[in-house]
Amino acid sequence: MKQINIGIVGMGTVGTGIAKIMVQNKDIISARIGAELVLKKAADLDIERDRGIDFGPDLLTTDPFLVTDDPDIAIVAEMVGGTGIAKEVIERAIENGKHVVTANKALLAEHGNALFEKAENKGVALAYEASVGGCMPIIKTIRETLVSNRIEAVTGILNGTCNYILTRITNEGITFAEALKDAQSKGFAEADPTLDVGGFDTAHKLAIISALAYGMKINLDEIYIEGISNITPMDIEFAKDCGYRIKLLAIGKFDGNAVEARIHPTMVPFSNQLANVSGSMNAVSLTADGVGNMVLSGRGAGMMPTATAVLSDVADIARNILAGGGIRVPLRSYQAANIREVPIRPIDDIKTHYYFRFTVFDRPGVLSKIAGILGNHGISIKSVHQTERKLDGGVPLFMLTHRANEADVQSSLKEISALEVSTQNPVLIRIEEDES
Amino acid sequence: MKQINIGIVGMGTVGTGIAKIMVQNKDIISARIGAELVLKKAADLDIERDRGIDFGPDLLTTDPFLVTDDPDIAIVAEMVGGTGIAKEVIERAIENGKHVVTANKALLAEHGNALFEKAENKGVALAYEASVGGCMPIIKTIRETLVSNRIEAVTGILNGTCNYILTRITNEGITFAEALKDAQSKGFAEADPTLDVGGFDTAHKLAIISALAYGMKINLDEIYIEGISNITPMDIEFAKDCGYRIKLLAIGKFDGNAVEARIHPTMVPFSNQLANVSGSMNAVSLTADGVGNMVLSGRGAGMMPTATAVLSDVADIARNILAGGGIRVPLRSYQAANIREVPIRPIDDIKTHYYFRFTVFDRPGVLSKIAGILGNHGISIKSVHQTERKLDGGVPLFMLTHRANEADVQSSLKEISALEVSTQNPVLIRIEEDES
Repeated sequence: MKQINIGIVGMGTVGTGIAKIMVQNKDIISARIGAELVLKKAADLDIERDRGIDFGPDLLTTDPFLVTDDPDIAIVAEMVGGTGIAKEVIERAIENGKHVVTANKALLAEHGNALFEKAENKGVALAYEASVGGCMPIIKTIRETLVSNRIEAVTGILNGTCNYILTRITNEGITFAEALKDAQSKGFAEADPTLDVGGFDTAHKLAIISALAYGMKINLDEIYIEGISNITPMDIEFAKDCGYRIKLLAIGKFDGNAVEARIHPTMVPFSNQLANVSGSMNAVSLTADGVGNMVLSGRGAGMMPTATAVLSDVADIARNILAGGGIRVPLRSYQAANIREVPIRPIDDIKTHYYFRFTVFDRPGVLSKIAGILGNHGISIKSVHQTERKLDGGVPLFMLTHRANEADVQSSLKEISALEVSTQNPVLIRIEEDES
Repeated sequence: MKQINIGIVGMGTVGTGIAKIMVQNKDIISARIGAELVLKKAADLDIERDRGIDFGPDLLTTDPFLVTDDPDIAIVAEMVGGTGIAKEVIERAIENGKHVVTANKALLAEHGNALFEKAENKGVALAYEASVGGCMPIIKTIRETLVSNRIEAVTGILNGTCNYILTRITNEGITFAEALKDAQSKGFAEADPTLDVGGFDTAHKLAIISALAYGMKINLDEIYIEGISNITPMDIEFAKDCGYRIKLLAIGKFDGNAVEARIHPTMVPFSNQLANVSGSMNAVSLTADGVGNMVLSGRGAGMMPTATAVLSDVADIARNILAGGGIRVPLRSYQAANIREVPIRPIDDIKTHYYFRFTVFDRPGVLSKIAGILGNHGISIKSVHQTERKLDGGVPLFMLTHRANEADVQSSLKEISALEVSTQNPVLIRIEEDES
């Protein structure tokens, strides 16, 4: 039976997962691919740790370039992560004419344009299914299933840590701080959780998939990013009473001229499948002409789901090699010559539905003043709810709006703050209504 | 720009949809594939009807074999459906060395083994993404994403007509007959609805995907099939009170020795994503080692979703042709030499949870007798509920069981019927509990 030699740089959780699957499921992998995938060399700073696998002598090395430079290796899996040595490893492997598989969303979001061009020029694959949504075939679906469709929207829950925290707050009414602490103790959140709860990891993923979906260069800098740390049980509870759940959504939309690309806590109606994705699960909804919504959901992170995605890319490349052809599917979905710069619409220019929570003094005329300012900015109120509950010396005033423009909303909130009728800053959460 | 010539046999709804997309989205298809897809010839019995497309002269023909035999055509899309001429068209195209794309689940479920072998021997593709789940990439996900995983279960809502009818009964409390009539008037159900509501269409699809998932020959005959025509609003209401929705599920499970393959109305807990898939939408849940559950959902039928799936197959084949390689992905997921005969477990041997509804005379001792019979067969009752509501001279008695064996359940129900304490036959609905 033919062999395809693989090298792995970075034998942490995912790298070890890949090696484990290659051993445990060797039989079915060979029966499906028609060749044996062989781990030829693997690099890690720590080659002494027991990984529960018998690698045999000389397979592990501390030098990543012994992997990238090994003439017998056809496919290099970069599993280091981050934007440091990982970039060098990928570049060197490409220069050596090797196909590369990576799960490194941060690197691709920041340096993807140059890396993809490098791989395209060299005629090798740079595959990255594992960078977004774990084992869910989101990249394959955009590149290979929706080939004949104009994609209009990509909307997703792409960070398991945030979804876990929001689910805990939703189910138990605990605060963000409590839910975060719990997530950290269970290993669902890092000691420094900023990358996750600040929305940055989600932004890396949105940068990658919106570029793919719309045939544009990756543009991380223009993405609007707002994290989940200000979400309170009170907002979640009110949302629930109105038929919504609060999720950290990545929203990428294209109207043919400009792209909306934004990450923020979002109220999602129960009828939307994303509302029902809970715990550390991920999900992506794709909207395209002719097909409406298609939703993929599954485990977005973790050893085995990520290793599965890496191995699906490895299998794709192995099958190309065995079939004797070149690169079949353009790395960025569109042929390199068709990749454009598409402007990202500033957040001020978007139009959506809004939820506001004001905390106001309980006295006559306050509601009328607030409603007046919103009306002056053309913001139409859909529903208002004021409770008797005392909060920080005031009472909460909840509002849902019809479709409005973000800049108008921001101006209104500024004017309302200046009224000095509030005991707290207003809370704003955008709503993603079903469009049908 | 290079051209790939396509032929279509059967210019009904889906065939016309394919032609429409090829015209409307020509720009993006070319930008993604790097070649132009050209409709060279299309056959249909009716070539006079206005399809809203300008085909130019001589493109339409009434002779399907002018398509299959055209030396300029590389890919033939069989869109006739059924098991008659469609089979001949596919066989002839394969014999002529053409790649074939089909959406014909009935044909593949009945004659797929022979057709796949024919295509494998000839070295051409026989692609069928459109045969299951419309635009959802269920076949691609099994063949190309879960390459390194042992698939353990495939569970799906695969018939939009049934899901639409069950959703109407659930939401409005109408009867099956009323919901069916409504579905027929809205075009969601055929005049003769047997293929759909009897579960047969779902069985065709399960036959195809369980073969794919488990590397086995297609085996339609052994699939247990039960339709939805006996489902009543009362059962749906009780299910809801207990936290379940009733769905027509296709269930295909593999324990390494034998496959369970069954189609029947199923109580699905709200926490299961499939419970939240409503109306004519389809969804499939895939369970595999390491990745847990992954769910795909979307439009499972209709002109554009099906045409999209056909064109994703066409694009895959076109990319193979352009890259200059042979067939990359085995048609049946496993290499032909690895496809086995795997026994399908008889329905009597399955173990699952059950819902029973008895309609019994309202007199002392009845519950004890029924519970006694169940106990004698080792069936453990999880909950019992009896209402005062009169029904057909009796009162309904609802029961949920722990995991039990089907044969024991059937023997018990027979004994209970023989007691002559019931005014109606007992109702049995299987339950698919979350396994985690």
